[in-house]
Amino acid sequence: MDNLFVIKISGNIIDDQGKLSSFLKDFAFIKGKKILIHGGGKLATNIAEQLNIPQQIIEGRRITDAETLKVITMVYAGYINKNIVALLQANNCNAVGLSGADGNLIVAHKRTSEIRSFEENLGKVDYGFAGDIDKVNNEWLWKLLENDFTPVISPVTHDKKGQLLNTNADTIAQEIAKSITDQYKVTLIYCFEKKGVLENADDESTLISKINTSAYKELKEKKLIHSGMIPKLDNAFAALKNGVKNVIIGKAEDLTQLIAGSSGTSIRNEQ
Amino acid sequence: MDNLFVIKISGNIIDDQGKLSSFLKDFAFIKGKKILIHGGGKLATNIAEQLNIPQQIIEGRRITDAETLKVITMVYAGYINKNIVALLQANNCNAVGLSGADGNLIVAHKRTSEIRSFEENLGKVDYGFAGDIDKVNNEWLWKLLENDFTPVISPVTHDKKGQLLNTNADTIAQEIAKSITDQYKVTLIYCFEKKGVLENADDESTLISKINTSAYKELKEKKLIHSGMIPKLDNAFAALKNGVKNVIIGKAEDLTQLIAGSSGTSIRNEQ
Repeated sequence: MDNLFVIKISGNIIDDQGKLSSFLKDFAFIKGKKILIHGGGKLATNIAEQLNIPQQIIEGRRITDAETLKVITMVYAGYINKNIVALLQANNCNAVGLSGADGNLIVAHKRTSEIRSFEENLGKVDYGFAGDIDKVNNEWLWKLLENDFTPVISPVTHDKKGQLLNTNADTIAQEIAKSITDQYKVTLIYCFEKKGVLENADDESTLISKINTSAYKELKEKKLIHSGMIPKLDNAFAALKNGVKNVIIGKAEDLTQLIAGSSGTSIRNEQ
Repeated sequence: MDNLFVIKISGNIIDDQGKLSSFLKDFAFIKGKKILIHGGGKLATNIAEQLNIPQQIIEGRRITDAETLKVITMVYAGYINKNIVALLQANNCNAVGLSGADGNLIVAHKRTSEIRSFEENLGKVDYGFAGDIDKVNNEWLWKLLENDFTPVISPVTHDKKGQLLNTNADTIAQEIAKSITDQYKVTLIYCFEKKGVLENADDESTLISKINTSAYKELKEKKLIHSGMIPKLDNAFAALKNGVKNVIIGKAEDLTQLIAGSSGTSIRNEQ
């Protein structure tokens, strides 16, 4: 079974043209099958501000009204996606930029309102055009990979009824990785601004190089894991439960070492 | 040999959501292989204005500076392309939205400055990031079509060195059509706001239903053809010379009749 790397990059690397170019060179250099999933970065927020579209964030989640969806589609599926593709093509990587609508790659449904009761009761939260994933068209993905294409996926999905939806890029990476474990030995890599999972978020020397289920339980109990890390790790273990072989969390700048296993935090079910 | 319809739509239909939906329904309904190429519409100009990016038009051609290219990539390759794809998917047409960078579909080079000498001497005109086409990756296009995908192509190309370029959608339609005449019997359809080629641009009853090479020569000599129509017709005859079987110019609203041959102007080499 061939190896497949499913790699997700997020905001900070996308906002820095120099870092992005250097990352994409490393990415293009990876031998074998690979998929890149990218998030947004600050550009969408900047463009929304310039277009006078007020941005509403509730508990760290962006509310996607119709105008915000327009900006997201322009910036994520257009500007960022096509620039990444052009840069990969320049590095002889046969990239194809796709949203979830293209070839019906990712079908989602509009998130229903959630009832929230906190100290300040938020009542029902309508996330607008946020999409929760129903299905990945893994057959097409597999065909693309077998024909030596490298899919570059933007976090825009659709509901197959004509509506585009804004979907979290971490979730897309996880669902893509899980969908294709029958065809490949999948490694899922989340790139972010830190070296990996740190015991002390401000000290990169406290990198935890391996986490398995029991170590995770212990770290959580001892509150040794930064709260922002928990959804990422929950995501990672969910992926492992569904056939993904290995999840690595680390710094985009260290991509080559992450692939080689000499940097970042490696997350495994056991061992 | 299978039929293939290469259909180009332009601004006016893209700007009107109702008309666009109705056109895409008709398009999805076409049996067999088809490709859609779309231009821009007013949205790019509106967004550029809102972002305070001054638009410079010389002799009807937009000068694509770096900021304008950003807007074009956002609007054409992002917003318009993905919305068309989502609407086609809703109509059970397996659309895939592509720029020229995706899968190295269309390689172009940055247009070199042109020396212009008119009454008012313009000197050299630098069109900025405008791309003239070098090559269409027709092998991939063919594979997509054979797998029942419908490519939806935005007028953004690349130079294979990492630079995206703005390319005229009429030209893309022509080059795409010409590239694939060994595999299909190609009909190229240009949709615009009029019924077809008119003797009197203001009177739709003066539609010329067929034009061949000799009739075109005569019409030009008698100055019976509106000057704005001449580049379109020159394009059409160039396509016919390169193996395209039939070129039709007509109204987007009449797509079904254009396909059936009961509306628009049909352009053929002879007869």
